[in-house]
Amino acid sequence: MLEDHKRTTAYYRAIVDNRRQFEGKVVLDVGTGSGILAMFAARAGARKVYAVEATSMAEHARNLVKANQLDNIVTVIQGTMETVELPEKVDIIVSEWMGYLLLRETMLDSVLVARDRFLKPGGAMYPSHARLFWAPIKAQESAERKESFDRVIEHWEWFLLDMKNLYNIDMDVLTHPYIAEQKQNYLGGGEWADVHPDQVLGEPLASTTLDLHRITIDELKAGVSGEGQITLKGHNPIEAICGWFDVSFRGSPENPVDHPIELDTAPDAEGATHWGQTVFMLQPPLHPQKDDKLFVRFAVFRREDYERLLRVQLETRLMPSGDGMKKEFGVD
Amino acid sequence: MLEDHKRTTAYYRAIVDNRRQFEGKVVLDVGTGSGILAMFAARAGARKVYAVEATSMAEHARNLVKANQLDNIVTVIQGTMETVELPEKVDIIVSEWMGYLLLRETMLDSVLVARDRFLKPGGAMYPSHARLFWAPIKAQESAERKESFDRVIEHWEWFLLDMKNLYNIDMDVLTHPYIAEQKQNYLGGGEWADVHPDQVLGEPLASTTLDLHRITIDELKAGVSGEGQITLKGHNPIEAICGWFDVSFRGSPENPVDHPIELDTAPDAEGATHWGQTVFMLQPPLHPQKDDKLFVRFAVFRREDYERLLRVQLETRLMPSGDGMKKEFGVD
Repeated sequence: MLEDHKRTTAYYRAIVDNRRQFEGKVVLDVGTGSGILAMFAARAGARKVYAVEATSMAEHARNLVKANQLDNIVTVIQGTMETVELPEKVDIIVSEWMGYLLLRETMLDSVLVARDRFLKPGGAMYPSHARLFWAPIKAQESAERKESFDRVIEHWEWFLLDMKNLYNIDMDVLTHPYIAEQKQNYLGGGEWADVHPDQVLGEPLASTTLDLHRITIDELKAGVSGEGQITLKGHNPIEAICGWFDVSFRGSPENPVDHPIELDTAPDAEGATHWGQTVFMLQPPLHPQKDDKLFVRFAVFRREDYERLLRVQLETRLMPSGDGMKKEFGVD
Repeated sequence: MLEDHKRTTAYYRAIVDNRRQFEGKVVLDVGTGSGILAMFAARAGARKVYAVEATSMAEHARNLVKANQLDNIVTVIQGTMETVELPEKVDIIVSEWMGYLLLRETMLDSVLVARDRFLKPGGAMYPSHARLFWAPIKAQESAERKESFDRVIEHWEWFLLDMKNLYNIDMDVLTHPYIAEQKQNYLGGGEWADVHPDQVLGEPLASTTLDLHRITIDELKAGVSGEGQITLKGHNPIEAICGWFDVSFRGSPENPVDHPIELDTAPDAEGATHWGQTVFMLQPPLHPQKDDKLFVRFAVFRREDYERLLRVQLETRLMPSGDGMKKEFGVD
């Protein structure tokens, strides 16, 4: 999580500005990496910090903690949340678990396991809440991608001819699955982008808020979905839908923070965090009439074949004209 | 293996030009993919072809075989060579198993398992032989990579300052491992390249020939190594060592082909096959004096942590000046 000051600063403020919540407390940092959040917690006055890291990065974390003279407070443990043992329950869990589009390759499952195994009743999660956002955008890449896709299809036609002429093999029976696969590759996947706020064509639609104190792994597996109407600015063609997330640090109902902090990954003229935004092309684009609204329905699931990746369903429809489409995207 | 006419044509010629070796024979195609080699073998007169494919590509292969009216000869079987059962032994095994630098992510183990389980005594492997090659080259990328590495290190220095100033965390203890890791990333990895023959600065050094009829998986695991002296053309700075491979189709001693075929992935002015060549940077470059020779010692191992990737050791020394270096590279 280093080298991205927007996010490091959000965590720093969430912990150090809420020193009253950390003083004398026991803290667990899930997926500590270099140990940075664990050290913030120790600096904020925690009595004890358990910093759990699954990878051999744990050794570097241990060295860093020592170099910063915090090894009397922070104990780095190499292991997974599913198998690790702690000598006591904890008051606070901090973790930087978020993936692209919040949930891609996320460590959230491990954080929820940590919560269910080790958080005291009334204990607080940092962050405590998360939301997904969706907005219509204009996207130069849209036309480029379409062209690139067209070139691939043209190339395939030449390839078919070559295979027939050079080797007398008829490959035409693969044309349909090949084009379907290419279409998915070129038009159907979510792509990382650093979207400029000027590209955004309407008010973002937010998901319901995920409460990290309560949500279960089963609920996550069932998917995050929602729908709503977006008021458009002007009537530019809508070439893509862009997704992002925010998380907030409010503490738990029993232990609220003094200073709530938000970490928001929306399009930003100063440039994206490493998460960027995730862009889903609409092909063809939507052409809103004056005063049209955009209806969006979304659902984000883990993929059945590989849980770390996502399957994203987006349905978009201009209202009241009824010019709609429903698409499924893969994020990998 | 489709869409790369140099390699498809080599296999086509190796099979169809040696029709006398295939007529009435039983053939096994290991990792058939679209089924193309199996269909070549059927067209060359094989009595029966077993086309084994581990992935769901098998279904496409089955459709292609049928569309080409070869389903009376070719049977597509989804499975791995380790577990599949065939109703009979085979006269010939064909396979396009080669990876980058011959051995990276190679299917060769499965081909050798197939040979040991199913090839009749005296049966033939297509291809039958393989060699690695090494040559000194000039490489524009060398200076760029060095610059890019320098920028990363400079960035790290700023990062250290920021972490200290913004969060009062001293990260200096990570400087040494970070730089070592970056050095490995920027300077130490083998890179795919389409090298032009004009870049090549000396006669290539060939490994001993791997005989696919005899080599064992244990021998492969022990690594492919060799050494020799390279006569240099001129005395340009040597910025990198470039590796590639060839395979040949000669049949077995008992069943030699009528028309030997070679598939060679050396630097080619007309452009590389999909394998390209693999380039290892020398940092700093070697500066040969007139009449110097280049001593090269190489060893290619699978990586202990992940067998599909490679560990490459290269030792280079100018002779007679004795200006030498030994390096280890990772290919991933």
